[in-house]
Amino acid sequence: MPDAHSGAASLRTVQQLFAATTRVQRMLDAEAALARAQAALGIIPASAAEAIEGAAKVERFDVQALLNAIPTEGNLAIPLVRALTSAVARVSAEAASFVHWGATSQDVIDTGLVLQLREALAIVLADLARADVAAAGLARRYAATPMAARTWLQQATPTTFGLKAAGWLDALLRIGDRLQEAADGVAVLQFGAASGTLAAFGSRGVALSSKLGRELDLCVPDLPWHAHRDRLGSLAGALGVACGTLGKIARDISLLSQTEVQEATEHAPGGSSAMPHKRNPVMAARALAASVRAPGLVATLLAAMPQEHERALGGWQAEWDTLPALVIATADAAEAVAEALEHLDVHPDAMNRNLELTGGLIMAEPVVLALAGHVGRSPARALVDAAVERAAGQRRPFRDVLAEDPDIARWLDRNALETLLRPESYLGAAADFVARVLAAADARRGERRRAD
Amino acid sequence: MPDAHSGAASLRTVQQLFAATTRVQRMLDAEAALARAQAALGIIPASAAEAIEGAAKVERFDVQALLNAIPTEGNLAIPLVRALTSAVARVSAEAASFVHWGATSQDVIDTGLVLQLREALAIVLADLARADVAAAGLARRYAATPMAARTWLQQATPTTFGLKAAGWLDALLRIGDRLQEAADGVAVLQFGAASGTLAAFGSRGVALSSKLGRELDLCVPDLPWHAHRDRLGSLAGALGVACGTLGKIARDISLLSQTEVQEATEHAPGGSSAMPHKRNPVMAARALAASVRAPGLVATLLAAMPQEHERALGGWQAEWDTLPALVIATADAAEAVAEALEHLDVHPDAMNRNLELTGGLIMAEPVVLALAGHVGRSPARALVDAAVERAAGQRRPFRDVLAEDPDIARWLDRNALETLLRPESYLGAAADFVARVLAAADARRGERRRAD
Amino acid sequence: MPDAHSGAASLRTVQQLFAATTRVQRMLDAEAALARAQAALGIIPASAAEAIEGAAKVERFDVQALLNAIPTEGNLAIPLVRALTSAVARVSAEAASFVHWGATSQDVIDTGLVLQLREALAIVLADLARADVAAAGLARRYAATPMAARTWLQQATPTTFGLKAAGWLDALLRIGDRLQEAADGVAVLQFGAASGTLAAFGSRGVALSSKLGRELDLCVPDLPWHAHRDRLGSLAGALGVACGTLGKIARDISLLSQTEVQEATEHAPGGSSAMPHKRNPVMAARALAASVRAPGLVATLLAAMPQEHERALGGWQAEWDTLPALVIATADAAEAVAEALEHLDVHPDAMNRNLELTGGLIMAEPVVLALAGHVGRSPARALVDAAVERAAGQRRPFRDVLAEDPDIARWLDRNALETLLRPESYLGAAADFVARVLAAADARRGERRRAD
Amino acid sequence: MPDAHSGAASLRTVQQLFAATTRVQRMLDAEAALARAQAALGIIPASAAEAIEGAAKVERFDVQALLNAIPTEGNLAIPLVRALTSAVARVSAEAASFVHWGATSQDVIDTGLVLQLREALAIVLADLARADVAAAGLARRYAATPMAARTWLQQATPTTFGLKAAGWLDALLRIGDRLQEAADGVAVLQFGAASGTLAAFGSRGVALSSKLGRELDLCVPDLPWHAHRDRLGSLAGALGVACGTLGKIARDISLLSQTEVQEATEHAPGGSSAMPHKRNPVMAARALAASVRAPGLVATLLAAMPQEHERALGGWQAEWDTLPALVIATADAAEAVAEALEHLDVHPDAMNRNLELTGGLIMAEPVVLALAGHVGRSPARALVDAAVERAAGQRRPFRDVLAEDPDIARWLDRNALETLLRPESYLGAAADFVARVLAAADARRGERRRAD
Repeated sequence: MPDAHSGAASLRTVQQLFAATTRVQRMLDAEAALARAQAALGIIPASAAEAIEGAAKVERFDVQALLNAIPTEGNLAIPLVRALTSAVARVSAEAASFVHWGATSQDVIDTGLVLQLREALAIVLADLARADVAAAGLARRYAATPMAARTWLQQATPTTFGLKAAGWLDALLRIGDRLQEAADGVAVLQFGAASGTLAAFGSRGVALSSKLGRELDLCVPDLPWHAHRDRLGSLAGALGVACGTLGKIARDISLLSQTEVQEATEHAPGGSSAMPHKRNPVMAARALAASVRAPGLVATLLAAMPQEHERALGGWQAEWDTLPALVIATADAAEAVAEALEHLDVHPDAMNRNLELTGGLIMAEPVVLALAGHVGRSPARALVDAAVERAAGQRRPFRDVLAEDPDIARWLDRNALETLLRPESYLGAAADFVARVLAAADARRGERRRAD
Repeated sequence: MPDAHSGAASLRTVQQLFAATTRVQRMLDAEAALARAQAALGIIPASAAEAIEGAAKVERFDVQALLNAIPTEGNLAIPLVRALTSAVARVSAEAASFVHWGATSQDVIDTGLVLQLREALAIVLADLARADVAAAGLARRYAATPMAARTWLQQATPTTFGLKAAGWLDALLRIGDRLQEAADGVAVLQFGAASGTLAAFGSRGVALSSKLGRELDLCVPDLPWHAHRDRLGSLAGALGVACGTLGKIARDISLLSQTEVQEATEHAPGGSSAMPHKRNPVMAARALAASVRAPGLVATLLAAMPQEHERALGGWQAEWDTLPALVIATADAAEAVAEALEHLDVHPDAMNRNLELTGGLIMAEPVVLALAGHVGRSPARALVDAAVERAAGQRRPFRDVLAEDPDIARWLDRNALETLLRPESYLGAAADFVARVLAAADARRGERRRAD
Repeated sequence: MPDAHSGAASLRTVQQLFAATTRVQRMLDAEAALARAQAALGIIPASAAEAIEGAAKVERFDVQALLNAIPTEGNLAIPLVRALTSAVARVSAEAASFVHWGATSQDVIDTGLVLQLREALAIVLADLARADVAAAGLARRYAATPMAARTWLQQATPTTFGLKAAGWLDALLRIGDRLQEAADGVAVLQFGAASGTLAAFGSRGVALSSKLGRELDLCVPDLPWHAHRDRLGSLAGALGVACGTLGKIARDISLLSQTEVQEATEHAPGGSSAMPHKRNPVMAARALAASVRAPGLVATLLAAMPQEHERALGGWQAEWDTLPALVIATADAAEAVAEALEHLDVHPDAMNRNLELTGGLIMAEPVVLALAGHVGRSPARALVDAAVERAAGQRRPFRDVLAEDPDIARWLDRNALETLLRPESYLGAAADFVARVLAAADARRGERRRAD
Repeated sequence: MPDAHSGAASLRTVQQLFAATTRVQRMLDAEAALARAQAALGIIPASAAEAIEGAAKVERFDVQALLNAIPTEGNLAIPLVRALTSAVARVSAEAASFVHWGATSQDVIDTGLVLQLREALAIVLADLARADVAAAGLARRYAATPMAARTWLQQATPTTFGLKAAGWLDALLRIGDRLQEAADGVAVLQFGAASGTLAAFGSRGVALSSKLGRELDLCVPDLPWHAHRDRLGSLAGALGVACGTLGKIARDISLLSQTEVQEATEHAPGGSSAMPHKRNPVMAARALAASVRAPGLVATLLAAMPQEHERALGGWQAEWDTLPALVIATADAAEAVAEALEHLDVHPDAMNRNLELTGGLIMAEPVVLALAGHVGRSPARALVDAAVERAAGQRRPFRDVLAEDPDIARWLDRNALETLLRPESYLGAAADFVARVLAAADARRGERRRAD
């Protein structure tokens, strides 16, 4: 990855992994492995396997012509097997007759896909891990930095930026775990031949299957899964959830970086062709765009699942462009969020300034709670509601309005009010929550290291 | 279209219309037209417009490099405008300073898209018209050919193949009309500059806009529509509905062509790499795959609609790959259904054979109705229910079982039963319906001809 | 509608229109109309029609028991027809035998649905019209009120609140027109009997169909549309686009009403159980929630379209809960946006304050354009870029930084800069655009009035 | 479950679990548990907790009035807390002031939801387990029953019904495991108060949280998850995948039960109001309808995930009707497939009859393979292609046509051809695959038993 610093290296790599050239090569890899496995079991001659392997290089094929044949032939394997057979025949007519021996198109297409997915998901997972580390850094550094929590896009009561980052981290850990699990779940060989019985191999089907799985370092399933797509559906679900969480983080960043908020901003924003002052949160936009696209792509993959009998008519074909698009979108989002979090400019001064924007009104809840201890909750709420009304109407500091009300001042003097109105005094378990998530993240990293 | 006979010519053309090269060229077309319009109004020098137009050829640009810049710069227009400016500067430094004058990235990207859509949708509409004609031919030819109607995939009572084809035609006419309307609805200029005010042009914005619309032969909207995507959403809806109807027709064809049914089959089915006897309904699969994909793609475009203020952060970007994918899927489905219907092999003998499969049971309803006139509906239904039970249990012809029952035979003799059990005698308004739809199709074609 | 002022009257009415009770009543209305039409044509006795009509009152049925039968019987019509037959039989055994005569379950279910839709869509359209009027009022009143346009959630250059409201209005007019068209498009009778041939009526099917259409004031289609759902799909598309636009308006309102922005706020916001100061934009949330839900619901209706042969197995059934949910969501959004716009508190002072937030930086574009006339665009952009950098870094007013730069001051003196930096001076065609949209809205209202 | 034999008992129970009454009761349960936990920690008086618990019975509330308040108040908790406070106040004014103490609306709504989900998912999982057992029974019983495999809805080569059932079982096991995991994943307390800090409880927030978790037997998360919905998103994904697999099984059943195929039929099909002979696969339709609906519902839940800051504006609200609809749809599908599989009528005679439908053509592949050993694959394929063509064209038995061709007969005599054309001789690893899946199912059941 020579251009690792460009901020789009992962995306570019994943795009290439799903480009037509790589797709054809992975199918050729499956054909070559099949020939090797068959030779190892004495099903075809070793020389045939060598000839097939030698010809199975994408450079030798007209990829565009192969793609063009899909709509009339029905899939990419039919023209590819024909072309591979011709290529092998140029070396050995006998070997040519063993190309794709006993297999079916879907065996090659699905196994090729699974190989592509393995490479691509590793990259996505690595970017999620980068995002984890960055979020943990923010949670730790800003564990005690107060800022306004916002509910319904209205300032609520205070929180800390550390707690917000810990929330991101907590979710990132979960989506990483689930995506790893789903990735493991799809690293499964497809090999069943025409009807899923491996009929051409008589009693040797199971042994051949095992050998082929070892050749490709893929798990061998209990039976072929041609029309059962739940593993891919589960991967789709995990990718969709990952995009949702990445979109949530990106939405937070985009809101924090508004001109009127400016509490956290991307370090390397995008510019405008016309407006010199623009600082566009480009990384957030990448992740948000992915989170808009993912649900529809997941829906397509789920809708494609009820496939007819032993091979689908429509459902399988609908997956071909959809699953790559979903993986690419997730790679885009994961890299963008990793980039944004690693280089986030955090502005505690702006957080402070915004905390004061309401003149203290966002601290109304603790005043109610304190007062309730003296007069009961309903009367307390009524007193504070009236004070909020006056303060907002007259645009005066909340503390002054509170202090003027004898029914309040009777229980809470200026000093008590000062304390109640300090955001730092009303953070509850924020620090505990941050500590718990950081500990969990450390434990998770330990586990992952041991798993490697 | 040299390969018009291949059955995938339209698909290939539409794919090329949305390839990166065409996309960039249409954006360059928009830049060139902008310069011409500005020169015509004296906003920039005529020589600058000429220089810009001269440089606005996609062959001069490194398209892959432009694409690679999107994830970090935010969109395709920013690097393209920069590259175009450099290209123009090589001819004239002064002209270079008028490239993209007063415009914003979205003006160029959206207007380029609209130009792509216009070309692509014309091809889809032409294929829908081919499908119309083919369906009308089938409806006319087979207006009196009885076949089993199937509800819940169970044989119901008889219908005609002509009525089935008329149902396809009726729906094809509607989706064609709606898609034409939606296509007209998106042929609209995007031009508003940074904030949608055309601020750089002072009082000349409206005039410039009109001129630019004329240059590109696009409708000029009442105001720029940067963050209002309802026109594209409506197009998406029309495309989604078109795919749904095309999928319905394809589903019918795929079911009719089952080995066990064989009532209608594609004339040029696909083969199998392993099984010499296979006749795969490849055209039906193309349309069905599109109908599985379209709903998710439409959902994405609708989900992208609530765009923030004057320019979206995520929603607009989510459209870029999605709308082309949806148009391409629809083009695929429209061409595949046109191909399938134009070359459908219809087998009335198989229809007859299948009508007899239940030994007359599918004619149970008219027996109930005839009997009801004599004994009331409930007793009639009870008598026929019992006869159905016996006929099915003993696998005997329904007519024999009916004739044996004295409570039935009393009202319906062998002759009457023979008549009641003939599918041709129970087709009701089928021929009327076919005639009505064919008349409507003729009228529609007349209108369209006048509209041209 | 006694509680019209509650802000949820339309929603409640539409919910009731799709409640089980109304659903059953509309199906009973279809049965009664069928009997009347058949009696008018002499197909059944007039006395039977009277008895059927007399029994066709939902109060007489155990609606919950009917609903409970759906999962095992397959649809709501089967148990309902049985129950209706029993009810009629209690009056006249003869009449009972003419209940549902010659019809099929789907005839009654679809026709009942179409009757429900007609009522419900009229309410949605009325709320969209309310929103139109409110948006037009805002566009007119605030046509000259400057505010910051925001792209990527960053302040761009100035616009007016009137132009923003005109953008809302422009889109509202389009979604209203399209929804009216789609509503007209689904007001279509379903009547085809078991296989869509009206076989039981021999040559009288067409006449009976016409009579039944007149009874229910529904359009009579060229042929029954049991498995062709494109009309409903088009309605779904129009509803989805409506929700998208309503969500866009709601998103704008929610962003404008942020604590840190406060440029426009709902007049009757929601409160919090704990925080006295909260002013939650509840109407915006209703519309945004609908815009999140609609895409998935539309996708379901499109995915349900490829229905098998003459009656679907899964697809039709998938519509039953989905289309009502989509209409209700749209009704919710339309009413919420109408409420929000009718009572929007607009704060021009906050708009002004926010325009000054960047110390003039958002006026960088006009400075570039003015300077470009003297030094060419690239040098102008470089000079202004540097000034932006300095102003932002030193947190000083942009005008001061510009005035200090001799390469700028040489061409633009303090006076010229003052003028360039005034938002009001850089609004371009904003007022023209507002005027055009208002004129279009007036014309539309004229048309609609004439159409009534 | 008194009506367990009706085939819709689970569906009905799950519908009731998500009815408004249960929803309100679960929220009241959360309020009561909160009061108990606070009393246990001395935060509120024990007498207050008792009064609150005593009042927290849904029968005491006007549920419809509470629902009606949602659109204007923003959520169900606000009116419910108010009503609960009034109810408690009727017993004790002091206790009333401790209702919902320190909590926020979302705490109660989400925790109530989680309690509903726990009950409902247990029912879905039980039905999936029923389906497992039934599929295993079919796989075992029919492990050696040959039938035609079908790819693209065309007969391919033979398989066994046991292998088809084993494929269903294999997928059912996986969706059961994943749904169990997702169900465990959402059994998590929501408790964070206004901003997710539990600020009102000072340093006791963590302890109170733990206590509350124990009260409700829910897992206590590392931090509140108000705006992080990935757990629900993962559940949605698992439900969507479950519906996809259930839909696949149902699609197979619906295709097998076609009038023209009749290889397996539902034991208790639905009838028709008009046609005595109809045997509608109602259970298959239920599952297929769910599989059409689920993708759109999942998409909505994923689209709702990017929620703003500490509480969403639109996204959270979009979940309220959507997640229940998805769980209910899955319950519907799971029960329907369990019912269909437990009572499936399998017709090996029809399987045999259909295997002979092509006159032996579906055995073309093994003939090619056998011949290839003698003449090489390409010549073998050419010879067999020609024979297929002749047999199909002349409608003659494949064996006769093969035997007539001297280039074939030279290598394969009548006897060899007879053997090659017997479906039983070309089943490959089918029996091995069935055995493997049955062993895996046994192991899984063992594990589950140990886990209980």
